[in-house]
Amino acid sequence: MNGNLDVLKDTGIEVRNGTIKRYIKRNEVIPEGEKVFNFPDYILLPGFIQTHVHLCQTLFRGLAEDLPLLDWLSKRIFPYENNHNRKSLEISAKIGLCELQKTGTTAIMDMGTMRHQEVIFEEMIKSGMRGFAGKCMIDTNGLYPSFCEPYEDSLKTSIEFAKAYHNSNNGRIKYAFAPRFVLSCSEKLLKETYSALSDFEGSLFHSHSSENKQEVEEVRRITGKENIEYFNSIGVLGERTVFAHCIHLNDNEIELIRSKKAKIAHCPSSNLKLGSGVADIPGYLNKGINVSLGADGAPCNNNLSCLNEMRLASLIQKPKYGSAAMSAQEVIKMATINAAEALGIANETGSIEPGKKADLLLMDLNGINNPLNDVDIYSSIVYSADVTNIKEVMIEGEWVISNGESVIYNEQELVSEGKEELKKLIERKNTR
Amino acid sequence: MNGNLDVLKDTGIEVRNGTIKRYIKRNEVIPEGEKVFNFPDYILLPGFIQTHVHLCQTLFRGLAEDLPLLDWLSKRIFPYENNHNRKSLEISAKIGLCELQKTGTTAIMDMGTMRHQEVIFEEMIKSGMRGFAGKCMIDTNGLYPSFCEPYEDSLKTSIEFAKAYHNSNNGRIKYAFAPRFVLSCSEKLLKETYSALSDFEGSLFHSHSSENKQEVEEVRRITGKENIEYFNSIGVLGERTVFAHCIHLNDNEIELIRSKKAKIAHCPSSNLKLGSGVADIPGYLNKGINVSLGADGAPCNNNLSCLNEMRLASLIQKPKYGSAAMSAQEVIKMATINAAEALGIANETGSIEPGKKADLLLMDLNGINNPLNDVDIYSSIVYSADVTNIKEVMIEGEWVISNGESVIYNEQELVSEGKEELKKLIERKNTR
Repeated sequence: MNGNLDVLKDTGIEVRNGTIKRYIKRNEVIPEGEKVFNFPDYILLPGFIQTHVHLCQTLFRGLAEDLPLLDWLSKRIFPYENNHNRKSLEISAKIGLCELQKTGTTAIMDMGTMRHQEVIFEEMIKSGMRGFAGKCMIDTNGLYPSFCEPYEDSLKTSIEFAKAYHNSNNGRIKYAFAPRFVLSCSEKLLKETYSALSDFEGSLFHSHSSENKQEVEEVRRITGKENIEYFNSIGVLGERTVFAHCIHLNDNEIELIRSKKAKIAHCPSSNLKLGSGVADIPGYLNKGINVSLGADGAPCNNNLSCLNEMRLASLIQKPKYGSAAMSAQEVIKMATINAAEALGIANETGSIEPGKKADLLLMDLNGINNPLNDVDIYSSIVYSADVTNIKEVMIEGEWVISNGESVIYNEQELVSEGKEELKKLIERKNTR
Repeated sequence: MNGNLDVLKDTGIEVRNGTIKRYIKRNEVIPEGEKVFNFPDYILLPGFIQTHVHLCQTLFRGLAEDLPLLDWLSKRIFPYENNHNRKSLEISAKIGLCELQKTGTTAIMDMGTMRHQEVIFEEMIKSGMRGFAGKCMIDTNGLYPSFCEPYEDSLKTSIEFAKAYHNSNNGRIKYAFAPRFVLSCSEKLLKETYSALSDFEGSLFHSHSSENKQEVEEVRRITGKENIEYFNSIGVLGERTVFAHCIHLNDNEIELIRSKKAKIAHCPSSNLKLGSGVADIPGYLNKGINVSLGADGAPCNNNLSCLNEMRLASLIQKPKYGSAAMSAQEVIKMATINAAEALGIANETGSIEPGKKADLLLMDLNGINNPLNDVDIYSSIVYSADVTNIKEVMIEGEWVISNGESVIYNEQELVSEGKEELKKLIERKNTR
């Protein structure tokens, strides 16, 4: 697939120093001494980019079932996150990164947790993953008061992390300030966080908004406004703002997002599983709003595969908008170039174009679960593909998945260490 | 899991002559000479049962995208089915059966096609699959007139197939008469088909109903009634009737299905992908109606995995009914014991109980995509599992999947033969 997602046959690319140099044809003579990887029956596409994930939550998969958002947070997720130590956070990040890469994701925007954020950055760097992360900012927490810190500490440590990690790993890692959501952030925190963006070129403001009706009511009770109207009224809505969810928006909020060029990270599995609702994505796209995809956290999904999110993002809109709505090609765009644009990194990733980084995905769509001709590659990817079709994944010219297996991690070791650390974390939580 | 889907730890089963004899404990001494399969970390559950699939359509995966039901049928599926020969139908069935078994399905109810139905039966028998199939009956076809046959032929050949195959393969195969839907069947055909049930004990009446709003309108225009009211008025609604879809039902139709004990096969992927709608399954279950699951055909899904259908069946109801609706355990029931009851074969399959056939599934839920503790096995299966977690599948005491690979089929050969036959079928279609 080229930069417009057109399918080019019998074509490959030259990669040098992690960068895509040019397209090459199948019959081109390659000079001796060059490394050649030949996958004649595979589809080469840009790696998937997910604009909203929570690596810190991977350890809690399956431990927060059948709850709506606010209970899910107060009864499970906040108490679990509150008991992370460096070791449990490290393995949580590793398992998440491994699953993300194995399912074809080469860049993410992560919402971190309140403590030990350096662990997330270090693990992202070790994994080779491209993307944004940021310490989760919480300075008021009516849902779970003990998971909270003073406003000054939250801001100060966030800025320290931005100084330490923004543009680290040779520019592959960037900082996204991460005030969790209106209900856990003072107005002062939100405003000063937004101001801090100007000191870090290319950094982002990453939060949750309008996910759940109870949350929206509570925001209205506290601020007298809807989420997006409130964000706008305090001046934190702009083109560097990315909000996860945005299910329950009124017309004015949609217009505010459009006119201020804020971005929406759509999380269809999570939105269904927590019973939050179905966001009107075709409506948003129709207005020209940038919408990208995210698996959210493992405990509200319960996978991190972009394939699941693409399939669902397409399927759930069709009963309302008709069977032609949200075409396969459109959701692939959401998972690649739209996401790169949302993150402000479309100059370096999100499509296969000379000059961009070699963040690539090779899929073998010749399984018994795939179509038997290649009349519609997009449909093969979105509607029929599963993890077994994802064979090779490269980030900036380095293989992270080879023949479906992680090059970086030993999966069995991750799982057994994860079990161990989860057991200890639950003990810490129960003995507090 | 035992017959109530309770999770028993450190437990196995004794299987003899294809039948489950009794539970055994991990520490039990096994007499020498007995074959022992030891999977200490796997979950043993009943094989999945899908009550609505179309093996004949597997070849057409990816060839009928972004269309609503009636266009999907008239422009793509009927023309394709109409050009099946024995060979193309054989490979279509094989690929479908292989995918179904690989994803844990041990019994199906298949809607066949108009010609060469013997091929479907022979392939089901060779694969070891349990279940029902039947020649598709079409004696009027306004959507695609050339895919149609006289009423007498349709009924006569159906009865011949029932005589030949009902209770074949030692009772593993049964006949389900398969009038396609109201728009393709005369009243006479529907009535006489239903009468034929009495000659074949345990046979079923399998059709589609109330899938799409246009279809419902057209049925109303032709019969003056809603689908289920029409079926009832001509006397073909009863406990041996299984309808796929049932999305657009009025209160009276729901009450008719309940009181007549007809069964509903819910196909969530297909219903979303064709833009048909979201069936009110919690409402139906609440009234005591039996609801089971089906992947429908490959061109409207585009997979045949019961894992996808279970996850979606749960997720799509939660925005309306709340995050606790359609629990993981409930959808596993729909995919196992409810389905066996719908098909009238709960005495022999659908749960792990002494005396039932050994139709079994072993899942390894220790992947990086699964929860790290076993606090909720149901959630692991429904929300996090994918095909890589399905390791061993047995039907009536014989392995059909071993370590994730088909024992019956060479997958690569299936795919290359499928490509070949699809190419020829498309040529036949285009040169007609």
